[in-house]
Amino acid sequence: MMFASDNTGPAHPKVMEAVTRANDGYAMPYGNDALSGLAADAVRRLFEAPDAAVHLVATGTAANSLALGVMANPWDAVFCHRVAHVEEDECGAPEFFTNGAKLTLIDGADGKMTPEALARAIAHTGDKGVHGVQRGPVTITQITEVGTAYTLEEIRALTDVAKSFGLKTHLDGARFANACAALGCTPAEMTWKAGIDAVSFGGTKNGCLGVEAVVLFDPELSWEFQLRRKRAAHLWSKHRYLAAQMLAYVTDDLWLDTARAANARCAELAAALRAIPEARLLHDPAGNMIFAELPRGAHKRAMEAGAQYYLFPFQSSLEGPEDDLIRCRLVTDWSCKPEDVARVIDLWRG
Amino acid sequence: MMFASDNTGPAHPKVMEAVTRANDGYAMPYGNDALSGLAADAVRRLFEAPDAAVHLVATGTAANSLALGVMANPWDAVFCHRVAHVEEDECGAPEFFTNGAKLTLIDGADGKMTPEALARAIAHTGDKGVHGVQRGPVTITQITEVGTAYTLEEIRALTDVAKSFGLKTHLDGARFANACAALGCTPAEMTWKAGIDAVSFGGTKNGCLGVEAVVLFDPELSWEFQLRRKRAAHLWSKHRYLAAQMLAYVTDDLWLDTARAANARCAELAAALRAIPEARLLHDPAGNMIFAELPRGAHKRAMEAGAQYYLFPFQSSLEGPEDDLIRCRLVTDWSCKPEDVARVIDLWRG
Amino acid sequence: MMFASDNTGPAHPKVMEAVTRANDGYAMPYGNDALSGLAADAVRRLFEAPDAAVHLVATGTAANSLALGVMANPWDAVFCHRVAHVEEDECGAPEFFTNGAKLTLIDGADGKMTPEALARAIAHTGDKGVHGVQRGPVTITQITEVGTAYTLEEIRALTDVAKSFGLKTHLDGARFANACAALGCTPAEMTWKAGIDAVSFGGTKNGCLGVEAVVLFDPELSWEFQLRRKRAAHLWSKHRYLAAQMLAYVTDDLWLDTARAANARCAELAAALRAIPEARLLHDPAGNMIFAELPRGAHKRAMEAGAQYYLFPFQSSLEGPEDDLIRCRLVTDWSCKPEDVARVIDLWRG
Amino acid sequence: MMFASDNTGPAHPKVMEAVTRANDGYAMPYGNDALSGLAADAVRRLFEAPDAAVHLVATGTAANSLALGVMANPWDAVFCHRVAHVEEDECGAPEFFTNGAKLTLIDGADGKMTPEALARAIAHTGDKGVHGVQRGPVTITQITEVGTAYTLEEIRALTDVAKSFGLKTHLDGARFANACAALGCTPAEMTWKAGIDAVSFGGTKNGCLGVEAVVLFDPELSWEFQLRRKRAAHLWSKHRYLAAQMLAYVTDDLWLDTARAANARCAELAAALRAIPEARLLHDPAGNMIFAELPRGAHKRAMEAGAQYYLFPFQSSLEGPEDDLIRCRLVTDWSCKPEDVARVIDLWRG
Repeated sequence: MMFASDNTGPAHPKVMEAVTRANDGYAMPYGNDALSGLAADAVRRLFEAPDAAVHLVATGTAANSLALGVMANPWDAVFCHRVAHVEEDECGAPEFFTNGAKLTLIDGADGKMTPEALARAIAHTGDKGVHGVQRGPVTITQITEVGTAYTLEEIRALTDVAKSFGLKTHLDGARFANACAALGCTPAEMTWKAGIDAVSFGGTKNGCLGVEAVVLFDPELSWEFQLRRKRAAHLWSKHRYLAAQMLAYVTDDLWLDTARAANARCAELAAALRAIPEARLLHDPAGNMIFAELPRGAHKRAMEAGAQYYLFPFQSSLEGPEDDLIRCRLVTDWSCKPEDVARVIDLWRG
Repeated sequence: MMFASDNTGPAHPKVMEAVTRANDGYAMPYGNDALSGLAADAVRRLFEAPDAAVHLVATGTAANSLALGVMANPWDAVFCHRVAHVEEDECGAPEFFTNGAKLTLIDGADGKMTPEALARAIAHTGDKGVHGVQRGPVTITQITEVGTAYTLEEIRALTDVAKSFGLKTHLDGARFANACAALGCTPAEMTWKAGIDAVSFGGTKNGCLGVEAVVLFDPELSWEFQLRRKRAAHLWSKHRYLAAQMLAYVTDDLWLDTARAANARCAELAAALRAIPEARLLHDPAGNMIFAELPRGAHKRAMEAGAQYYLFPFQSSLEGPEDDLIRCRLVTDWSCKPEDVARVIDLWRG
Repeated sequence: MMFASDNTGPAHPKVMEAVTRANDGYAMPYGNDALSGLAADAVRRLFEAPDAAVHLVATGTAANSLALGVMANPWDAVFCHRVAHVEEDECGAPEFFTNGAKLTLIDGADGKMTPEALARAIAHTGDKGVHGVQRGPVTITQITEVGTAYTLEEIRALTDVAKSFGLKTHLDGARFANACAALGCTPAEMTWKAGIDAVSFGGTKNGCLGVEAVVLFDPELSWEFQLRRKRAAHLWSKHRYLAAQMLAYVTDDLWLDTARAANARCAELAAALRAIPEARLLHDPAGNMIFAELPRGAHKRAMEAGAQYYLFPFQSSLEGPEDDLIRCRLVTDWSCKPEDVARVIDLWRG
Repeated sequence: MMFASDNTGPAHPKVMEAVTRANDGYAMPYGNDALSGLAADAVRRLFEAPDAAVHLVATGTAANSLALGVMANPWDAVFCHRVAHVEEDECGAPEFFTNGAKLTLIDGADGKMTPEALARAIAHTGDKGVHGVQRGPVTITQITEVGTAYTLEEIRALTDVAKSFGLKTHLDGARFANACAALGCTPAEMTWKAGIDAVSFGGTKNGCLGVEAVVLFDPELSWEFQLRRKRAAHLWSKHRYLAAQMLAYVTDDLWLDTARAANARCAELAAALRAIPEARLLHDPAGNMIFAELPRGAHKRAMEAGAQYYLFPFQSSLEGPEDDLIRCRLVTDWSCKPEDVARVIDLWRG
């Protein structure tokens, strides 16, 4: 009963087999091997973007930070939601990789920036000439940090605001597959067709060991990206092991299958929570992540039986009045077992 | 007949099996899993350094840059050999990670800084008060960039110079194992017993997929290292896959066995080259890397039969007078086959 | 009738005479001249801080950024008010000088952080271990950006919060003198006696050509400050010209006299605005700066007669309904003439 | 008898008078005043460059670092002479302002890079693809750090090498005027007509209080320069005081008159040293700076009588055998008195 994060699960067997298969004989380093070419091509096909630059890194923070690095000057603002991963969970990586750009925080319910708030922040940022930081890229998280999803129209509304100021947009897709599965749309529809200029296409949380593809729809950014990747120590010498993961991930819809499985488990959890009178969903879960409130007693029963997930505030105690409502985060991944879901639900019900 | 680099070979089966084994069930992320603890403990034991901080990253450049990051202020000099990897092959990663420290280049034959040259450079660096950059750490590459090895006495002589100025020392051990195998010494003897304060202990080039351990003998640097690692996007969420590699690598002397195999193949190549009248070794190879000169005709025969290795200057042509001497680099790894070695030798001999 | 800013006025004659006097014969460079020693001593005496390190720079942004540079790690948060100069008006200088620290914005009415909001932000910042940025210094602006002043108790309340988390505090005193004049307190009372660790003591806006003293009550930060100052190109070779200004400024209470004059003119403006029924003060002006609302017609009469000051939003038009209320900022400096004040008041009254 | 540096002397009376004159009434800040426009125009006329962007800063290190900042990416090499001020005397400011570019040191006698050495270094820098730093700008110091001057042909030979690789060139003209006076050429001839793209045109060492003009012959770099200047805290609010200095400096050939005076005194010193049998000029002095060797006894006589200048190595003792040759640096400025020159010569002669 592990619902702590989608990075606690194993890699999918097909991914692991691909890595093992790749471990045969010699291969040229630094992406100059056959698998690396195949993986990039496959990602381009997936995104229907034959001219896009596709580069692999091993962590989501690297994907985001390097993408923002080629999109933002040091003296620029980067616009993101107040609770975005780039703001809250990367120890200042965007500031490091951009040499000091300023993350400018946009409000919006359910983890989603509103176009109005974004437009206001951009307008405010640009009104001081040389004295203020300049307008830079907008970065959108999809699935959001609170488990919701922007609709395609909502994404388009944000990119329209950005474009109206001449700004570029990035999509942090650590849970990109879960969003596609939720919206029933294609990668192209969720990105360049909706006005997105660059994507961090996540694999790690959804069945890989550690690989993310950065897709730059403007290939002119490719060389600078490669220099920044090397300089940031994110260019793998034995690049085939990244490539093998990504290639397996995007082959035969594996990425979508794993996301659908995770989302299905999450939907089961959400349905159950909706049916528990004392429970409350804090947001409408779209993919594989739920924020909810449950009585302490329910948490206690589940956790004492082995369920693992985070309570908020961190380190909230299980000791205390049983009826107190305590917030929690629940995340499912591709490997999540229906019987574990059923069991935790039973435990909550008491 | 692949002698282009020690990053072209596969991971050792024991390492790959360990990764596959690690891919079972759930594990807490970011190094909070059992394997990660075991791996760090095993490295501490290997180095006879029970108090050392041990942290894993996936690339050698990350290991070096993060280690230098916790040792050098932005306004410091970092002293290294003129041809050090940190100077020549990392696209300025040390400058990026240190926020602009100045690599100060030390001369010395055979890729080895001399204590005299080092002392001179340090003394010169410190003589301008606030106007010049300040004295920072010394970083030593072992096996050197030209395939030689510092003796333990030579390492000690350099660290003595550093200590006499109150400076810290780092050892870039991308080929650490090859050096230990060559010198017949222990990791402790080659590092803290010889005055080294921090080590990049390489696994990638010697049988792993991609893992390096940074060993900080001063554990007080540990927390800053961890912050810098996260901020540089080098903290893996599914950390078990780094840990599994490193644990397998240091178990049952695998690291040493793979290095010995690579060194043995290299020694065979070197012996053959010494016996070819037209050939010349440019340095005395200690580990798994040779720089040599051979007639163009010898290179042509070998390469047309499928041998792969680099010529210098890069992209030297195989067309031209057969007797012209052309420099080359030859690198062996654990997987290098004796028959391939024998065959390339035969081809050179003509 | 110039009320656009306190950086539009001339230097006080005593300051200019001191600079002219300093321009005699030779003087050792980089602060090694007699005047520089005298100026630092005088500032130390003014602050009753015999052990403080005192360093001069030519701009307020340099003072703030260098002070924050020695107080914040690159991976730290710097806590400041949402409208602080360091956030809004320095084109990201704090991010540049700190190599990427994150300005974390605190709310509070009238330009003043509340202790509660500060405590909440600090607590939130520290709850993610290595994943989030770490807790760094708090910087307080006095006179605030909206012209109000923290009382000594309010400053103490903020520094108490900071200290309770083990954090350092900086005071951005671009209008330090105006605040002292307003509160009737000593520099020591407004700084170290209230828990402040470092101050940017402004001269430029209050009668100097361009000089600010950074006062570090912890002299252990002095050497790093000096290295950062040189590295940021803010160490003057002909340092005597900075020193002469600062020495004249703190001699015979000149700094206080000029601030009192500016504050007096500002009080006259405020009293008049309070008496105009259509006008409204947006904040209670403590020093030499007013934010107010006046009918467009009043602005038009004043500006067409030559009054200069900023309207908000920037470039608000004077064309339109005369009764519309339009916000404005009014700043006085030491050189502001009572007759100009009287005249603009008459013009507003119509 | 002050020969320690050209930053020990006072500002020229005409410059000081201009500053005093500028201290009258109100002036818009941040360069939006009349004097600032006049100063920029005057510099453009002086350089016969009507389209050039001209920006003022207060220190030479700021001028150099900001100019390099707009010319070099963080992952670039900056090519300079081994003893260049940017390498030796700025505490890593170029690395700070460029976010980590790598200064690549070029050899050459008499402080002058040779075209051959420059071409070799550039070629070497570019031969490693993404692994090495990339080719960036070349910066040339004129008057060099050892007091010599490049001829116009020598400058052209270096810029030709740079252009052949598609690289930009910067001229560090802290002693620009002394070089023009020495070569008898115009500013245009020494810069854009010789292939230079950007200049630090120094005023501080040659009669100003503290002002340098950065002249960018490519005005497209202007906006980024202004952002970097603000972000680095080098945009003066009371900009008129920088402008007044620069305007006076370039009016009626004052810059050239002061340089000629300094050069004349230097020539007198050089002629005398050539006539002293025990003395030796280490380089052929072109402007206002001499490196020479004299017996300890000569130094002792001069210094005990009050002469001030630096010995090398720093803090060489005046105690010891009188005949030992000890190196020294002698610098003259516009205010240097012929009788002081005559007297130190007499003292050396003994």
